[in-house]
Amino acid sequence: MVGIGPGGAADMSPRTLQALQTAGVIVGYKTYIDLVRDNIQGKEIISTGMTREKDRCAAAIEQASAGRRVAVVSSGDPGVYGMAGLVLEMLDASGKLDDVPVEVIPGITSATAAAARLGAPLMHDFAVISLSDLLTPWETIERRLEAAAGADFVIVLYNPASRKRNWQINKAREIFLTFKEPSTPVGIVKNAARQDEEIYITDLENMLHHPIDMLTTVIVGNRSTRLAGGFIVTPRGYAL
Amino acid sequence: MVGIGPGGAADMSPRTLQALQTAGVIVGYKTYIDLVRDNIQGKEIISTGMTREKDRCAAAIEQASAGRRVAVVSSGDPGVYGMAGLVLEMLDASGKLDDVPVEVIPGITSATAAAARLGAPLMHDFAVISLSDLLTPWETIERRLEAAAGADFVIVLYNPASRKRNWQINKAREIFLTFKEPSTPVGIVKNAARQDEEIYITDLENMLHHPIDMLTTVIVGNRSTRLAGGFIVTPRGYAL
Repeated sequence: MVGIGPGGAADMSPRTLQALQTAGVIVGYKTYIDLVRDNIQGKEIISTGMTREKDRCAAAIEQASAGRRVAVVSSGDPGVYGMAGLVLEMLDASGKLDDVPVEVIPGITSATAAAARLGAPLMHDFAVISLSDLLTPWETIERRLEAAAGADFVIVLYNPASRKRNWQINKAREIFLTFKEPSTPVGIVKNAARQDEEIYITDLENMLHHPIDMLTTVIVGNRSTRLAGGFIVTPRGYAL
Repeated sequence: MVGIGPGGAADMSPRTLQALQTAGVIVGYKTYIDLVRDNIQGKEIISTGMTREKDRCAAAIEQASAGRRVAVVSSGDPGVYGMAGLVLEMLDASGKLDDVPVEVIPGITSATAAAARLGAPLMHDFAVISLSDLLTPWETIERRLEAAAGADFVIVLYNPASRKRNWQINKAREIFLTFKEPSTPVGIVKNAARQDEEIYITDLENMLHHPIDMLTTVIVGNRSTRLAGGFIVTPRGYAL
C-alpha cells in the first residue's frame, strides 16, 4: 500500500517510486493512477471508480495471493483515509494476512501538503476530521467537531464536500463559530502542490464564499492563529 | 524550511533533496543535520543544540537577508512542531517577511511514518497532541487530551517524554483510561523508518512497560481500533 503524496513527482518519496517500479500490478482509483502514470509505463493496471474501494482491495488480494507483487495506490498517505486499512481488514477477514507479505509506505498527507502552501497553520496541536458521512454517522462527526473546536485544536477537514454532499461544511462552520471568533483564519487548498492548485486564505466568517469540494483541504486555526504577510501561522508559543 | 521526513533518504521527497542541494547554507538541529549529511557535502552548516530554535532562526534570517539561499531543516514535516512557524514569526517580527522569499517544503510527519510501521491505526479521525509543556501550559494539553479521548479520536502523541520530563505520559494514560478500555491498542514507534527503529504493539494497560522518549511517537486507538495479525488497524467503517 503506497502513498504517492499530494500528486506531483517532486513530493513522492523514493520508497514509493521504487514500489511502483518493482510492482507487477498497480491497483488504484483512476484519478490517482493518472497522477503516477509516467512511473508505471507498461505495468498491468487495475483501476476503478471512486466508491469501488472493496473491489480494488479484492483485486489486489487476488493478485498478491497468486504471488504477484502489487502496489495499491493512495493519494497522500495510504493510512489516512486511504487504502491501507481496508487491505489489512480484508486480508484478515479472508485468513490470508499471515500468507501475503504487506508493507505500508507512507506519503505526504493532504494536511501537511496543504499547510505548507498556507504557511505554518499546524504548528500546534491539531485534529484531522473527515466530513464524509458515507461510512460514519453524522452524530459522531459532529461530536468530534465540537470537541476539537471546544479544546482549541487547529482543525483539518478532509472530504469537506462533494457535488452531492454540501451541507456538512455549513454545519461544521456553524459549530466552529460557537467556539471560535469569526475572524479565525481559514486556509482552503485545492489540488495542493499540483499544477491546478488553488489557495484561498480567508476566515470563518467568509470561508463559504470560496470553492470547496472533494479535492480540497480546509484548515481552521486555533485562537492564536494569525496572518503574517500572505501566510497563516499558528504560534508554537515562543517569546519573540 | 524543508522537511526531511522520518530520516532515511528513501522517505525524503525529491523537492526536499533539491532544496538541500541548491542551498548555500544549511541550518538545523545537529541530530537532523546528521541524518542528511550525505546530501550536503561541502555546504556551510549552522547547527545548534535542541533548545536553540530561536538562535537557528535568527542565523537563517541573517543569511537569507544577505541574499544567500538557506535551507532550514526539520525532521518530519517543518510545519508540525517544526521550524516553519518560528521562521515566519521571526521574519514577520523583524519586518523582513516581504523581502525574503520563503517556501515551506513538506515532509512525511512522524504520525504517518509511525502509523505505516504499525499497520493502519490512523484510518479514522485523529488528534495530534504534543506532551511537551515547555511552551504550552499543561492545563491546555490536558484539556485537549480529555476532549480527544472523550470524542473517540485516535490520538497521536508527539514529544511524549524526555529524560527530564516523564510524568506527562503517565497523566495522559490516566486521562485516556477514563474514556477508553484498558485493552485499547497502543503503538509505540521509536526512530520510525530509521536503522535503529523499535516498534511495540501494546495496549493502554501495558503501554508504560515500553521505552518512551523524545524520539518516540505513541498512537492510541479509538474504540474500534483492533489488532489484525501483527498490525494495528482502525476500521474506516466498510461492511466487509
